[in-house]
Amino acid sequence: MRLVTFSPPAGPPRAGVLLGAAVVDLAAAAPLVLEAAEEQRWDLLSLLQADQDDVNLETAADIVAAVVQLSGGAEIGSSEFQIGGAAMLLPLTQVRLLAPLPRPASVRDFFAFEQHVAAAAALRGLSVPSEWYRIPTFYFSNHAAIYGPDASIPMPQTEALDYELELACVIGRTGRNIHPAEAHEYIAGYTIMNDWSARDLQLQEMAIGLGPAKGKDFATSLGPYLVTPDELELYTDDDGGLSLTMHARVNGEERSVGNAASMYYRFADLIAHASRDVTLYPGDVLGSGTVGGGCLLELTQGYGPWLARGDVVELEITGLGVLRNTIE
Amino acid sequence: MRLVTFSPPAGPPRAGVLLGAAVVDLAAAAPLVLEAAEEQRWDLLSLLQADQDDVNLETAADIVAAVVQLSGGAEIGSSEFQIGGAAMLLPLTQVRLLAPLPRPASVRDFFAFEQHVAAAAALRGLSVPSEWYRIPTFYFSNHAAIYGPDASIPMPQTEALDYELELACVIGRTGRNIHPAEAHEYIAGYTIMNDWSARDLQLQEMAIGLGPAKGKDFATSLGPYLVTPDELELYTDDDGGLSLTMHARVNGEERSVGNAASMYYRFADLIAHASRDVTLYPGDVLGSGTVGGGCLLELTQGYGPWLARGDVVELEITGLGVLRNTIE
Repeated sequence: MRLVTFSPPAGPPRAGVLLGAAVVDLAAAAPLVLEAAEEQRWDLLSLLQADQDDVNLETAADIVAAVVQLSGGAEIGSSEFQIGGAAMLLPLTQVRLLAPLPRPASVRDFFAFEQHVAAAAALRGLSVPSEWYRIPTFYFSNHAAIYGPDASIPMPQTEALDYELELACVIGRTGRNIHPAEAHEYIAGYTIMNDWSARDLQLQEMAIGLGPAKGKDFATSLGPYLVTPDELELYTDDDGGLSLTMHARVNGEERSVGNAASMYYRFADLIAHASRDVTLYPGDVLGSGTVGGGCLLELTQGYGPWLARGDVVELEITGLGVLRNTIE
Repeated sequence: MRLVTFSPPAGPPRAGVLLGAAVVDLAAAAPLVLEAAEEQRWDLLSLLQADQDDVNLETAADIVAAVVQLSGGAEIGSSEFQIGGAAMLLPLTQVRLLAPLPRPASVRDFFAFEQHVAAAAALRGLSVPSEWYRIPTFYFSNHAAIYGPDASIPMPQTEALDYELELACVIGRTGRNIHPAEAHEYIAGYTIMNDWSARDLQLQEMAIGLGPAKGKDFATSLGPYLVTPDELELYTDDDGGLSLTMHARVNGEERSVGNAASMYYRFADLIAHASRDVTLYPGDVLGSGTVGGGCLLELTQGYGPWLARGDVVELEITGLGVLRNTIE
């Protein structure tokens, strides 16, 4: 499934599933498979947090299957399927997609691509520290500053705004001290992540040795979908590694291209490390870190030019769609 | 007010206010001042997040005043005041105090005491970086691993467990780009914070230049109360600086003593910096960083001995009570 959070023409944002050029409104279509569906909370985070006995992602899949069956193969994308006056299928043109999790439970960002780490170290005349090969380190970022697809990013007070091309997984089950071999059971899905960065502020912070915080906390983009792992089977190797091409374009011009297969640490390693002596919860986001060459810092050897107001940044990853934002 | 989150003899944890040796159960006493009080959410985070028109901390103060008036100066500490069979006042011996915010909206930890920064730098043969005097830097910590007063802290996988003696403020109003001169309006209250630290893991992470994350993410203690700023007026100078003595004891023996007045940056500066281009929300926690000499790292020049299973760590700060935890 490609899960989304969308703003319908009326009412608060809620969870849906993409079906062709339309969104299945899970709340509206729920009566196809559930009684008393109106008592349920239909935001995506609540669905992820649900117990096995509650309405959860499996219920969502059942609802989508029921809608598909009802459509009988007819053209999807119209809003002709209704229950009690509520449209079950909304054309994408009638809704606005938000970040799949507008307020995730938390955001951890890792540093899992060796090429990016090496390039960042080289800018400071250093090589990759030996510790990097021993632990997949991360920092916590600001889970309360999340932007979705097509959102405008307010220009922060910086002279060096950058994008970072990343892939993220979202946790779907509570777990602690998770073994890498079982980590895949804890992944609800994947999405694109743009870890917007203010390089001048980040440089100040790195000299002090904490963070990054203000260099990164003003915005993180997620979306456009949360794609369940089964959708990516074709691109998944036996060890759970993902082979997904990653692109970044600025104002339509390709600047970065890479592949998730070049991650030194896999998501299973990241989950195992993050969960060491710590409980992970549904809705926790784990970012991969920047793919090699996946930011202007690397591409311009730290000199810029950087992003400016009006710039349109598009990140595209195989199977995960396009995450587009404009600097405002 | 000294606000608490407590587990009553029956029912889920909820917000209360200390009155002598008893806790005012705000939910139970609410009918003294409110109609339809039962529709309200009575956890402390909800009270902080409430709009001005909703039931909020001012309502809590009104409820406490009504309970005091009803008691007519009689001995507080009994559970004789009842409404509809529910006790409004519970002796502290009948309840368990939890962290005032068992799940804060976020946790930022700063580095605001010069003596601690200088001592930590000196252990690595360095002096305080000049950038530290320009910005009050911080890192985000794990807001999903919070422990309250008298809670047991599970021993993480480390050979170098340490405590950190800190003071924290909790945000009570949504704000962005907050001016230092207005920052005090955003503070709901203060509490004690223990930023438990695994020094061996932290050292690894610092070499990589992100975080700290695993060196700190397994536990943070908060409590025992959230003390509103008016209670600390006696200790507050004209610039909002706090003069509060801070102690740490391990197994009853005093190890650390310091004073909040030695903060190089004040909470107003921390709030201004954190809110630069970022929205702060009610329930966000901002830790001061460790007071000079406020951890074993400093006291033992990095060599330990460190904390062990069974050790009892007590942090005490003027007006804020004692935050006691045992390593399990």
